[in-house]
Amino acid sequence: MTRDTASDIDLLCTQARSAARRLAGLPDETRRDALIAGAEHLRARSGDISSANAADLEAAAQAGLSSAMIDRLELNRPRIEAMAAGLETVAALPDPLGETIAQWTAPSGLLITQTRIPIGVVAVIYESRPNVTADVSALCIRSGNAAILKGGKEAIHSNGMIADVLTEAFSACGLPSSALQLVRSTEREATTALLGRDDAIDVVVPRGGPGLVRAVAENARVPVIKHYEGVCHVYVDRHADLSTAEEIAFNAKVRRPGVCNAMETLVVHSDVAAPFLAALGPRLQDAGVELRADERATELLEGARPATPEDWTTEYLDLILAVKIVDSVDEAIDFINDNGSGHSDCICTADQESADRFLAGVDSAVVYQNASTRFTDGYEFGFGAEVGISTNRIHARGPMGLRELTTYKYLVHGDGQIR
Amino acid sequence: MTRDTASDIDLLCTQARSAARRLAGLPDETRRDALIAGAEHLRARSGDISSANAADLEAAAQAGLSSAMIDRLELNRPRIEAMAAGLETVAALPDPLGETIAQWTAPSGLLITQTRIPIGVVAVIYESRPNVTADVSALCIRSGNAAILKGGKEAIHSNGMIADVLTEAFSACGLPSSALQLVRSTEREATTALLGRDDAIDVVVPRGGPGLVRAVAENARVPVIKHYEGVCHVYVDRHADLSTAEEIAFNAKVRRPGVCNAMETLVVHSDVAAPFLAALGPRLQDAGVELRADERATELLEGARPATPEDWTTEYLDLILAVKIVDSVDEAIDFINDNGSGHSDCICTADQESADRFLAGVDSAVVYQNASTRFTDGYEFGFGAEVGISTNRIHARGPMGLRELTTYKYLVHGDGQIR
Repeated sequence: MTRDTASDIDLLCTQARSAARRLAGLPDETRRDALIAGAEHLRARSGDISSANAADLEAAAQAGLSSAMIDRLELNRPRIEAMAAGLETVAALPDPLGETIAQWTAPSGLLITQTRIPIGVVAVIYESRPNVTADVSALCIRSGNAAILKGGKEAIHSNGMIADVLTEAFSACGLPSSALQLVRSTEREATTALLGRDDAIDVVVPRGGPGLVRAVAENARVPVIKHYEGVCHVYVDRHADLSTAEEIAFNAKVRRPGVCNAMETLVVHSDVAAPFLAALGPRLQDAGVELRADERATELLEGARPATPEDWTTEYLDLILAVKIVDSVDEAIDFINDNGSGHSDCICTADQESADRFLAGVDSAVVYQNASTRFTDGYEFGFGAEVGISTNRIHARGPMGLRELTTYKYLVHGDGQIR
Repeated sequence: MTRDTASDIDLLCTQARSAARRLAGLPDETRRDALIAGAEHLRARSGDISSANAADLEAAAQAGLSSAMIDRLELNRPRIEAMAAGLETVAALPDPLGETIAQWTAPSGLLITQTRIPIGVVAVIYESRPNVTADVSALCIRSGNAAILKGGKEAIHSNGMIADVLTEAFSACGLPSSALQLVRSTEREATTALLGRDDAIDVVVPRGGPGLVRAVAENARVPVIKHYEGVCHVYVDRHADLSTAEEIAFNAKVRRPGVCNAMETLVVHSDVAAPFLAALGPRLQDAGVELRADERATELLEGARPATPEDWTTEYLDLILAVKIVDSVDEAIDFINDNGSGHSDCICTADQESADRFLAGVDSAVVYQNASTRFTDGYEFGFGAEVGISTNRIHARGPMGLRELTTYKYLVHGDGQIR
């Protein structure tokens, strides 16, 4: 790491802690107004944002990035408008702070109040799409946290301009000028330096591919809220309504295969495997899905190739589906717990006993009865926006919205109690 | 690490995960009955526990451990009875599992239920007092978690016997035999191996001296809930009732100086410093307290020596007190936030405006008005017992009881929703 980068990170950490203390004391109105002003300013400065984005797009083309990656990088007018509207949506959400979570009087006579407060300094490390800069800023500021953001090198100009525009608007509304800070260094060591600063950063959220998440989880001393892959399952029970199950499975696999809440493995009860796979299999194949099946399913699915052990634990993010046949709901539960990633899993069944068994037994952040796994999403959950989908077990599981960016403290009122 | 230790840790991790799945499905009654049986069995086997403890005490004497450490190690009859009673207390607490934390219908028509569940596999690494083995086991089992415990080398025989006795009782009640597992290896590498197993262990709680906590926090890939030191403050405001403040400050420093919720720094408003310190100073000195004061306070406290910068951030755990004079409640807040450890801090004041300012502004797990910092304790909070006092900012802050050993999942009921 160059000396410049090291001293940049030092300064950024010091400023973030100071900003967090000031933010925690600001009224709801100030935080809300700042986001509304930020939205207006994004619109007013859309020309500058487009110019900055053009520099990223040119660099991406020169570097030979894929057209899919270039598409994700592009900020056209509708996408800038969507970012602005996103800020307004978050501004309109209820204040997540100040809630009394619990209150009681202890035997000593002390009145104990557990109250909701910001976490403090939140770092988010992400890739590719520059709109994340605006989304995550909005959620952090609305919940009273100072944000340290590190985006991908490929979006450095776009992210920098968005952060500058938002900071101008936020500062004009009375927010500390360091409430939102973007790491401008493209050195990898800048990330390493951030991840070691558990004195200054309260939590880090890696949001991106499994490589990014793993690197952060392995190197961080700062507490991490991991956003790992989704190896999601749909289990079709012997008591399933087969046409409903077919729609759910088709949707969960085909609608948007590249996202973490898409189905990767279909699990089918042996009693219904023959008719169910006879209907769904060709439909999936017509949609371009490659099938990798266990021994019994291979016999029922023409053109399917045999699955290898790795198939059961792979997040394809593609039009590929693993298919497994089981003989009971318990076998399905064990298979999913052993091979899944604890993200989102579904049982299709009309039998409430099987459903209850599955919902209790599957150890995942979100467990569905009769609905597509694709609903694991902050917007669909009604959170207005999301930092991402946590695969952590502590603090936050599943979609992370405003409340998941808060913690609590105890306020204790006494009249001279000693012990 | 020897090959034996490595394979022991592997086996222990595999068994813990399997036990956690079974525990999560057991009814409240089974978990409760297991603790009651555990209590009875501790009493019935108290002779064996005493014998095991005698071996630890003998080794401690030979190793030349301090009499304070030997005292903490000793398990006499009243202490064994206290362990048993502790299990019964935890058994009598309400079931922390199954609570509906929130429930709502999303615009898609999905019914979303956020429900409280065990974390899964909880590892606790601790030192010295063997009763921790029973306390932590009780809390983990009651909350449906599998426990992996690693105590200090000095208590290896006592901890081993307590774990054996409890496991016998738990298994007889239908708990998985690996619900509670004690790491028997005394190799330091066993801890390192555990801390790397984020695939098998969901959270690790280090409970002990700052050296232990720091070593765990620096080396763990498993998420850590830190139990760091308490650099706790009492701030005596200009509007304080001075005789109440004197009792609180004296209690917070002198009653039990060796614990994390004891006061380490006294902060006094300049308007009341002269009369307050004139009364409290000699009383503390009579109780054997050494005073280390800032420039102004040194003039008011005969026999005080000047404080160095290190004094403001030191957890003495001893009869030593740092004394600082400030000119406003805001200066007190900033001083505490800059120098404290975010554990427990108190304002003594009769002025509600100053109190509200302090309670909102001090960024600590527990903030008091007019009560001793010594109430930061699971028993005093009414939690029945405690894993310890968390200085983490996420997931759990302050006293950690049953609820802090839980997390949540979302159960989602649909009728065929696709997206």
